[in-house]
Amino acid sequence: MLVENKITDFLNELHSNSPAPGGGSVAALNGAIAASLVGMVANLTIGKKNYAEAEEEMKVVATKMNEVKDKFLDFVDKDANSFNGVIAAFKMPKENDEQKVARTAAIQKGYKEAIAVPLDVAKAAAELFDYIEVALKKGNKNAESDALVAAISARTAIQSALLNVEINLSAVKDQKYVEALRQEVLDLRKLANEGETKILNQKSF
Amino acid sequence: MLVENKITDFLNELHSNSPAPGGGSVAALNGAIAASLVGMVANLTIGKKNYAEAEEEMKVVATKMNEVKDKFLDFVDKDANSFNGVIAAFKMPKENDEQKVARTAAIQKGYKEAIAVPLDVAKAAAELFDYIEVALKKGNKNAESDALVAAISARTAIQSALLNVEINLSAVKDQKYVEALRQEVLDLRKLANEGETKILNQKSF
Repeated sequence: MLVENKITDFLNELHSNSPAPGGGSVAALNGAIAASLVGMVANLTIGKKNYAEAEEEMKVVATKMNEVKDKFLDFVDKDANSFNGVIAAFKMPKENDEQKVARTAAIQKGYKEAIAVPLDVAKAAAELFDYIEVALKKGNKNAESDALVAAISARTAIQSALLNVEINLSAVKDQKYVEALRQEVLDLRKLANEGETKILNQKSF
Repeated sequence: MLVENKITDFLNELHSNSPAPGGGSVAALNGAIAASLVGMVANLTIGKKNYAEAEEEMKVVATKMNEVKDKFLDFVDKDANSFNGVIAAFKMPKENDEQKVARTAAIQKGYKEAIAVPLDVAKAAAELFDYIEVALKKGNKNAESDALVAAISARTAIQSALLNVEINLSAVKDQKYVEALRQEVLDLRKLANEGETKILNQKSF
């Protein structure tokens, strides 16, 4: 798994001339970062006398964020492999009409599969804002900046993932599907910007 | 070094109840990600016949981005240690007036040192937009989305680093210094948002 690499090695691989990992894996990584930062705020709150009231809720948040972090780490690898179906389809034979039809269908299916992964990343990151809000309002005030950075990281995960949705969407011919996805991209983009702004506006320093 | 850890281990450490690494290290990591993505676009351009005209410029970009990536990776560790001076200063004796004065001065010096690291991260990330622009305009079109994600990552590095500047700035009493820094924060924040927007507006898909 990519995330079993050292950070230095992962970034060298990112910097290299291999097409994957790229921006899609970076999107997922930022989702994992956001979840980890929210977990950090929760863990820095648990066991502190001044925050005894929030103890139980923070324990739930910390556990949940650990799970979500692991889910995003899976997405780092899934995204790096998400285009494999398209590549394989382009290599299919196209010597007669039957083969051409099968190949085109496989390419189209490949693009839809390549869209599914970053779309899942964006949706999962969109769910983080509620947890960030809780961590910011009820969590350890000393970790306020970490909660705020979590909001920026969640926006980054969403916006970066959506670019990977859109670039593949531009190759899809199913117009009904394309229109529905374009609307979903707009909605998630709005949610990402508004979610970040709402959190950053609560900054106390 | 933190960046010699596996990604999974680094995120577990981030998620834990230790105050560092936190949002400041995440800021630096996003700088390293942005530089790596620009390097990726350059490396995917080098050696391609269709991009022969850009060959020399892309070689320069790839080399520069590798250096910048390594500089940001150093900042991941530096930021995690940037608050140590403040912590040490707070532990100084305060039994007489002389000790109190020395302790207060050391605390103030500590906060200024804690500000220097994320400020350097924000400034270094602000310099990435020109390289992203070149990669986007002259680089391999197949890597367009990676260049766009680099812009989002650069903004994330700047905005996240600035939060770490501001939170420490709120403890500094030297008003002339504070006013100058507040203006620098505003300028860099504007540059981050405008830099990202300018790049994303060039999206072709």
